[in-house]
Amino acid sequence: MVESSSVRNRKPPGVRREQILTVATEAFGNSGFRGVSLADIAATVGISQPGLLHHFRSKEELLIAALERRDEDSFSHMAIVFNGASTVDGLLALCRHNQENPESMRLYAVTAAESIEPAHPAHGYFRQRYVRVRSSVAGHIRRDQDAGLLLPELDPDETAAEIIAVMDGLQVQWLLDPSVDMCAVMETYLRRLTRRESADGEVVR
Amino acid sequence: MVESSSVRNRKPPGVRREQILTVATEAFGNSGFRGVSLADIAATVGISQPGLLHHFRSKEELLIAALERRDEDSFSHMAIVFNGASTVDGLLALCRHNQENPESMRLYAVTAAESIEPAHPAHGYFRQRYVRVRSSVAGHIRRDQDAGLLLPELDPDETAAEIIAVMDGLQVQWLLDPSVDMCAVMETYLRRLTRRESADGEVVR
Repeated sequence: MVESSSVRNRKPPGVRREQILTVATEAFGNSGFRGVSLADIAATVGISQPGLLHHFRSKEELLIAALERRDEDSFSHMAIVFNGASTVDGLLALCRHNQENPESMRLYAVTAAESIEPAHPAHGYFRQRYVRVRSSVAGHIRRDQDAGLLLPELDPDETAAEIIAVMDGLQVQWLLDPSVDMCAVMETYLRRLTRRESADGEVVR
Repeated sequence: MVESSSVRNRKPPGVRREQILTVATEAFGNSGFRGVSLADIAATVGISQPGLLHHFRSKEELLIAALERRDEDSFSHMAIVFNGASTVDGLLALCRHNQENPESMRLYAVTAAESIEPAHPAHGYFRQRYVRVRSSVAGHIRRDQDAGLLLPELDPDETAAEIIAVMDGLQVQWLLDPSVDMCAVMETYLRRLTRRESADGEVVR
């Protein structure tokens, strides 16, 4: 397949792929999977539709690739922030990272809700993603309970679902109305899960 | 405007209106605002598009009417369950009520996320709704703090945003995967906001 764009618009495949994913993230985040056409995305990128299909074979494939790119960024960021940090501090660093990337948050919020429909192309993706993220957060909770940082009475699996719900729910409120201080509310919430006595013996709550 | 349906399909306007709203709730909840056409909704109801436009002048008006019908149901249910009940018990009753109405929950979850986009027809509706619901929940929190039922250190406004986030976030997880016990997680979370000593002097946490 040949791109219709002129020679000055030619870019290395990796750069072009990134550019398409950036445009797709914004478009799907604004209008949802059904509200966007590949023709719209190709036009915004400045390439032909066959040129776009050279990189992604379908709209479904492009959506999943945009979600996976977002996950790679989140998970690599989490690996950095969780390296040696407590669950609470790691999640707060993630919250601030998300806040700096509202386009990615919108893609995630809009597509997660849409994907409730079993026929949605990202239905399986989100079901599996939630299982994976709950399991990962539950592991961090267990580790911090063993280290005496989190309340011992917390059920790790249920609390993981709860923490992810707070984060997801606050994202929608903040994206709709930035006067909601997402990460401040998140911090107050997370501190409530910590043991009453902090490391220096001060009463936390 | 004249409906194309035969005489046996004629229904009193209130019944027909309810029927259209039920079909619209399911359709918008499945496919989002942009994924549904008035022609689809009219066809599912079994009336013509002019017949549908006799009840709702546009797709935008129909979406808002479906959301408002859902709110009327939620708010009247809340008025009943909060009458004499604590904030925690009222919210748990609401959680169970929501769980029995997954179509309404889907409409709400999908449209709230879509409406982040300022050009979405429900953008203003959801911004205002969150302000109103946060304010209402904050009022319940203050009342229960005065009654010694909730932790005195909770900031009512921030905690209201937090509670609504937990509820919204758990709804998406449950709708995607009903193995997440939404109301059980909600209950554990809400009990953590209550004072450590319950009415009978037992330590709650």
